[in-house]
Amino acid sequence: MKTVYFVTGNMGKVKEAKALGKEFNIEIQQIEYEYPELQSDDLDIIAKYGAECASRALNKAVIVEDAGLFISALREFPGPYSAYVFKTIGNEGILQLMANQKDRRADFKSAVGYCEPGGEAIIFTGTVRGEIAHETRGEHGFGYDPIFLYDDRTFGELGIGGKNKVSHRYKALKKFVEWIGTKDI
Amino acid sequence: MKTVYFVTGNMGKVKEAKALGKEFNIEIQQIEYEYPELQSDDLDIIAKYGAECASRALNKAVIVEDAGLFISALREFPGPYSAYVFKTIGNEGILQLMANQKDRRADFKSAVGYCEPGGEAIIFTGTVRGEIAHETRGEHGFGYDPIFLYDDRTFGELGIGGKNKVSHRYKALKKFVEWIGTKDI
Repeated sequence: MKTVYFVTGNMGKVKEAKALGKEFNIEIQQIEYEYPELQSDDLDIIAKYGAECASRALNKAVIVEDAGLFISALREFPGPYSAYVFKTIGNEGILQLMANQKDRRADFKSAVGYCEPGGEAIIFTGTVRGEIAHETRGEHGFGYDPIFLYDDRTFGELGIGGKNKVSHRYKALKKFVEWIGTKDI
Repeated sequence: MKTVYFVTGNMGKVKEAKALGKEFNIEIQQIEYEYPELQSDDLDIIAKYGAECASRALNKAVIVEDAGLFISALREFPGPYSAYVFKTIGNEGILQLMANQKDRRADFKSAVGYCEPGGEAIIFTGTVRGEIAHETRGEHGFGYDPIFLYDDRTFGELGIGGKNKVSHRYKALKKFVEWIGTKDI
């Protein structure tokens, strides 16, 4: 069985990746390591740099994952800085900024970067389209899940099982495990 | 005369640094080079990493500068991501988020990182305290200047001359040129 190290401190992400990996005969193991995260408008660039730094430092084949919420009416805010924005102004701040906006469209995006020591990273992406709700709804998930509407329910209402089948992160990780499954490592 | 390279694409910053350098017999020269900017809550960490990468890549003694607006009532938003936030939600978005806030306090912060090839960066910081105005005022400056109140006038009203004497960036650069003036390089 092939082994790939997932560099993250987020156990939720690891759980999801492990389950997916199993279907494709890939073992996903977690490593905690603080790789440098770049500032960039583009998640691909952030994941690429992070994966290359982490695989060089750890001398292992690794994946890293970066994600963000991109709201059309706010010109892609909060985008790559979703974590900091959530920590500071939170869902309340987003709802305030969206109060008078008719265009509610938003994308959750994920980029998974895979890199072998000394190599160049390969990027796998996933996007889910939804809308920003008018108020928080649901108790599941984390971050922006309670304000991200997908088919009339928020990710906060969908629950982990429902969300994981359609999520940006699931789509990106699925592309990765499908690809690595066919690769001779 | 000592020469230090300022790695930036911003001619305004270069002009300010050159004028300051002259007073201390330091020649500041601009270099354009895209060094990696980290994601971090802490400007010092961003400036340190950037200065070390740039000085290594260019094989020169360099400075880089990073700045941000930290609003108390918004838990330090937009902070290190001020440029992206300005580009997306802008001053209009900030005023909207601050509409019902009584606590208007905000800090403009700057971190200058100096590094010699192969060395570790040294950081010089500057802060200016002000308040967020209730509307944009003034035609000078750039970015958040028209909403940053300092002594009853916004940085947008103060004009470059007035702003530069009190600004976060001026304070950080001044510490740097004073220090480098005494150093044997």
